[in-house]
Amino acid sequence: MKIAAVAGGVGAGKFLRGLIQIVSPTELTVIVNTGDDMEVHGLHVSPDLDSVTYWLAGVADRERGWGRADETFRATEQLREFHADGSWFGIGDLDLATHLFRTRLMAAGERLTGATAAIAERFGVEARLLPMTDYPVTTRVDAVDQAGDTLDLHFQEYWVKRGARDDVKGVRFVGAATASPAPGALEAIASAEAILLCPSNPIASIDPILAVPGFAAALAARRERVAGVSPIVGGAPLRGMADKLLPTAGVEVSAAGVAAYYAGRGLIGGWVIDETDTALEPRIEALGLRTLMTDTIMVDDEAAARVARVALALAVAGGS
Amino acid sequence: MKIAAVAGGVGAGKFLRGLIQIVSPTELTVIVNTGDDMEVHGLHVSPDLDSVTYWLAGVADRERGWGRADETFRATEQLREFHADGSWFGIGDLDLATHLFRTRLMAAGERLTGATAAIAERFGVEARLLPMTDYPVTTRVDAVDQAGDTLDLHFQEYWVKRGARDDVKGVRFVGAATASPAPGALEAIASAEAILLCPSNPIASIDPILAVPGFAAALAARRERVAGVSPIVGGAPLRGMADKLLPTAGVEVSAAGVAAYYAGRGLIGGWVIDETDTALEPRIEALGLRTLMTDTIMVDDEAAARVARVALALAVAGGS
Repeated sequence: MKIAAVAGGVGAGKFLRGLIQIVSPTELTVIVNTGDDMEVHGLHVSPDLDSVTYWLAGVADRERGWGRADETFRATEQLREFHADGSWFGIGDLDLATHLFRTRLMAAGERLTGATAAIAERFGVEARLLPMTDYPVTTRVDAVDQAGDTLDLHFQEYWVKRGARDDVKGVRFVGAATASPAPGALEAIASAEAILLCPSNPIASIDPILAVPGFAAALAARRERVAGVSPIVGGAPLRGMADKLLPTAGVEVSAAGVAAYYAGRGLIGGWVIDETDTALEPRIEALGLRTLMTDTIMVDDEAAARVARVALALAVAGGS
Repeated sequence: MKIAAVAGGVGAGKFLRGLIQIVSPTELTVIVNTGDDMEVHGLHVSPDLDSVTYWLAGVADRERGWGRADETFRATEQLREFHADGSWFGIGDLDLATHLFRTRLMAAGERLTGATAAIAERFGVEARLLPMTDYPVTTRVDAVDQAGDTLDLHFQEYWVKRGARDDVKGVRFVGAATASPAPGALEAIASAEAILLCPSNPIASIDPILAVPGFAAALAARRERVAGVSPIVGGAPLRGMADKLLPTAGVEVSAAGVAAYYAGRGLIGGWVIDETDTALEPRIEALGLRTLMTDTIMVDDEAAARVARVALALAVAGGS
C-alpha cells in the first residue's frame, strides 16, 4: 500500500516512527517542511528534514525531541565563546556532520532533494524523504516585542533565539508563491492509497508546504483519502508554540479548531483526535469529517504505532 | 624588543609557547605557513595557523601535538560513517568551531589575515599572527607509490591520508610565485630586533613561506639578526617526515645539513643545535654561522622557554 505523509519536525518524526512499525517503509513517501531551513555558520540546516530522518533512523533523542540521541554540543559551545553569529542555534556535534555533508553536496551542485536522499541513505532510512521544494522558502514571523517594536524574524529566531516571547501578528512564507514542489512530491500524493497529515504545527509546519503551489490542490483532489492527526490535545499543543500561532490565523486552539482550519480548505477527509477530546467529536463530524479517537500521546514507538494504525484506517476508509 | 618568527605547525607552536614565557607576546609577530591549508567539508582549514594559535593560547594537545587538548572527534567519526569526501582528515569537534568561524568570516569578505586575527583574538592570543599570504598557495608533493605510479598529492594527502608511504620526488608550492606576503609581514621582519626561524620542517613548512616573493630577500637583508633552531636532532626529525623530504632537496638529514640549506641562501646568522649534535658544531661554524647548543627537546613550557632564550640570544648577538 503506497502511503504519502505531509510532515513537520518532531511530532511528525514520532508519528512516522510509529507508522513504519506497521507498514513497509519502502511504501512510504514523506514530504517535509523546509520553511524553517536556515544557514548557520555557512551550513544549510534543515531542522524538519533532519528530525524526520533521525526519528525514522531510530537515532533521535526521545527526551529532547529534536536532534540525535547521545549528542554533545562541543563545537556549538566553542562557537558561542567566539560570539559567532548564529551560535544561539544549538547544533550537536553529530548533527553537525549532517549539515556539513548536506552543504558540501549542495555546493557541488546537488539539489536539496538529492542531498536529502543521500543523507537518508546514509542513515539507512528506507522511506523516501522529500523536501517540500528545492527552492528557498523561508518562514518569517511578523511580531511585536515587549517594547512595542515590530520585528521581522526568521522562524528560528522567533522560536529558538527569542523563545517565542514576542506577540505574533502574522506568519509569511517568503518565496513559496514562486516555488514548485520537489520532483515526485505531487505524484506521491496523487498515487497514494493513504495520505497522512502528521501531528505537526499547522501554521509553522504544514502551512509552508501548502503555500507551495500545487500541494493544496493535490491534497484536495484526494481529500477522502487524507487523514490528519490533531497536534492539539486538550486545548494545547503537546510541544512547540502552536497555541501562540493558531490565533493569528483565527484558528481556535483545539482539535476541532485545527480540523476546521484544514476542512475549510477541503484538504482532509478524516481526523484523529485524542480520547480526552471526546466532547469535540460532534463539532468535527459536523465539518463533514470522519473521526476516530485514540490515546495520541506517543510515549514510545508502540504508542506511535497505535496512532498511525488509527490514522491509516481512517484514510483508507475514504474509499477510492 | 620587537621579535618576528617564521613558523610551521607543531614544532613552531611548542617553541613559541616557550618564547612567550620570556618575552611579552605583544612584541611578537609570527608569520605562519599556509601551504598546508586545505578545504575539508567545504571549510577552510589552516593546520599550521591553528597549531600556532592553540599552542600560544595554551589549549594545544601536548601529547598529540596537533589540535586541541580535551578534544573529541564525533563529527568526523560520523562523517567517516557517511563516507564523506575528505573525512580521512580528522577534525576535532572543538577544532571544527575554528574552521566554521574562519570559513564564515571569509565568506563574508574577510581575508585570511583578518580571519586569523579574529580567531587569535577569540583565543586571547596577544602575539600578532599572520598567514604568510592571503593568496591561495598549495604545497603539492610529487610522489611515486609502491606500484610505481606517479602521484600529484596535496601535502595533507601525502602526510595524513597516505601516511607518507610514497617515495617523494619533489615538492612544489603552487601559486606561490604570484602570491604576495600578507600585509605587515615583510615590515615585521624588517623592523624586528630578533628574527627566529622556528624548528619546523624546512621543506614542508619554511620553504612555502620562502617561495612567496619577498620573504627570502627580507630575511637575507637581516640575516645577522636571524637565528634558527634545528628541527633535526641526532640525524632525525623529532616528529613529522622531514627525513623523507630533505633528501629530495639534496639536504643531509642533520642539524648541519639544514643549517647549510638555510645558510646557502644567506637566510640565517645563527643556528641552535641540540647537545647531542656537538660533533656537528665545527661544520656549522664553517658555514659562517654563530652556534649555540642546548637541550632542544621541548618536553614542557620550561624546556621550550630555555630553547627560545638561547635562540633569542643568538639572534640579538647578531648586532644591528
